[in-house]
Amino acid sequence: MAAQNPNSLNIDLPTVLIHRLPSFNFPIAARLFTHFHLLDPITSPPTSPALFHSIRALLCVGPTPVTSDTLNHLSSLQIVVGTSAGVDHIDLADCRRRNIAVTNAGTAFSEDAADYAVALLIGVLRRVSASDRYVRGGFWPVNGDYPLGFKLGAKRVGILGLGSIGSEVAKRLAAFGCSIAYFSRKKKASVSFPYYENAIDLAANSDVLIVCCALTDETQHIVSKDVMVALGKEGVIINVGRGPLVDEKQLVGFLVRGELGGAGLDVFENEPNVPKELCELDNVVLSPHCAVLTPESFEALQDVAIANLKAFFSNRPLDKAANGAHALALPVPFNLGSG
Amino acid sequence: MAAQNPNSLNIDLPTVLIHRLPSFNFPIAARLFTHFHLLDPITSPPTSPALFHSIRALLCVGPTPVTSDTLNHLSSLQIVVGTSAGVDHIDLADCRRRNIAVTNAGTAFSEDAADYAVALLIGVLRRVSASDRYVRGGFWPVNGDYPLGFKLGAKRVGILGLGSIGSEVAKRLAAFGCSIAYFSRKKKASVSFPYYENAIDLAANSDVLIVCCALTDETQHIVSKDVMVALGKEGVIINVGRGPLVDEKQLVGFLVRGELGGAGLDVFENEPNVPKELCELDNVVLSPHCAVLTPESFEALQDVAIANLKAFFSNRPLDKAANGAHALALPVPFNLGSG
Repeated sequence: MAAQNPNSLNIDLPTVLIHRLPSFNFPIAARLFTHFHLLDPITSPPTSPALFHSIRALLCVGPTPVTSDTLNHLSSLQIVVGTSAGVDHIDLADCRRRNIAVTNAGTAFSEDAADYAVALLIGVLRRVSASDRYVRGGFWPVNGDYPLGFKLGAKRVGILGLGSIGSEVAKRLAAFGCSIAYFSRKKKASVSFPYYENAIDLAANSDVLIVCCALTDETQHIVSKDVMVALGKEGVIINVGRGPLVDEKQLVGFLVRGELGGAGLDVFENEPNVPKELCELDNVVLSPHCAVLTPESFEALQDVAIANLKAFFSNRPLDKAANGAHALALPVPFNLGSG
Repeated sequence: MAAQNPNSLNIDLPTVLIHRLPSFNFPIAARLFTHFHLLDPITSPPTSPALFHSIRALLCVGPTPVTSDTLNHLSSLQIVVGTSAGVDHIDLADCRRRNIAVTNAGTAFSEDAADYAVALLIGVLRRVSASDRYVRGGFWPVNGDYPLGFKLGAKRVGILGLGSIGSEVAKRLAAFGCSIAYFSRKKKASVSFPYYENAIDLAANSDVLIVCCALTDETQHIVSKDVMVALGKEGVIINVGRGPLVDEKQLVGFLVRGELGGAGLDVFENEPNVPKELCELDNVVLSPHCAVLTPESFEALQDVAIANLKAFFSNRPLDKAANGAHALALPVPFNLGSG
């Protein structure tokens, strides 16, 4: 049995507790095994619950919740290494109170998320997925030309949250001839794009809204009914952040009534459940929360997680850049655009 | 009746013959009516066939064929104004022999075609349309996470035909962190991207091949079996040029056997017919020849067509730039990259 457990050889390495729901895969472990003793209670339940109170570092897989109750069982915990861009599933206030550092995926996912946002946007404007259905359904020879889409160039794109993902989105869409503006927690001195003071003003001056901010108490439903009204009936909403950033019930109503031009959604309020009404619309592109899922981004994620865990166990600062990423060590406040 | 015909008021304007198959719509006429007397035999057959022999200018709608037989009925013809980027449907050799100028859509479609090529590429790599089907089909709650796609960044992109469309593709994909190389009729002094002497060498050094050259006798099936072998089993082919640029029968075989990584196809050899085998594949995105179809590009097309027709009737040079476009006046040879 021991031979089947790669950890049996590494018992002298620093121990990291794997925290995951049984349904969540853990695809990034390959290189972690060579640096840490990984303790996964799902596959190897510890003989004594007391062991948990000796754990100093926790690796949180995907959006597995880290609640006050979780923390109560881990009285020695000093760091939570998150593996997603967002940290809305982690009780940040309680971590702060207990002086537990929290890190996220840094910029490991930023490029893939930005690529996907662009694909969703062109997909909505030019009806790419709907055209694909049209061809596969055999309609082309019968019904002739597919209806016109809309050009991406010269569109006014408003970015909600100009963090690492939003910045990559801006860089890409500038090359398509779009004009860029943004709303973020605060105006960024290093950025020349126009800044708006709130989401409604940004929407009122945009043809497209790209949502890529972190989900916090302040940003929940930041894309509200009022924002949708301001965006207007030809406006397009792209969400690669988190489902609850958008008031989904309102969004569905606006789309069904034709009061928005379209939407490209990788995330939803009640995943994996998607409102049925959206599945009937050709001006909507739907995606199962996979904007960041590539082998390349998982490699980059391992770089970030290993760098942060090594820094922690060596008492080095956690804000060390790893693969271009900066760890977020609390109590540094989370940036609206970091999600 | 006369009141219903906007041309009745414009009989003193220069006459332009509309040349179209009955099945082809003519969506770009709106502004042409104010400048020219448009004669459309489909809606208003002329009382005498002799009228055709007085026609000096012909506006060719979409890919309506202009054959030697067409030209035999138009003994005074001096210019064919094409409305598509490609001119493979026009008998260029016979036009040259009769000293008839031929113009195309210039750069009116370049940006839209490039946008679409990028959407097809991300669509193939990240399985955007397949993910959309997955969600719409209700598979997400049942089967869980969608399989990983592949990152666009750092991919080696080979562009076949670095004309106006290919150049716009290059500009966009550089912003995604791709490296660009190309094969064109000849090396371009103004371009710093690596140049390959032929399509096979380009494919051998690329992860992705984007086909956007003009269809000529020399470029038919330029994406041959040998090119597909050189591209390799993870290679992706995007075609926004013309169907016959790719050996479609070979392509289908390579994709079905898993000897290519995927394909994004807006054009086909026997449109509107698409090989059934392709409709079964999730690593393929299919599109009904609509890469350039937006209201914005049709506006730009009118600019080009009006500018060229006005230049012709004023005896001004046809290579006048209109909306950034250059008319192609034969006998200037067609550039491989102009399509």
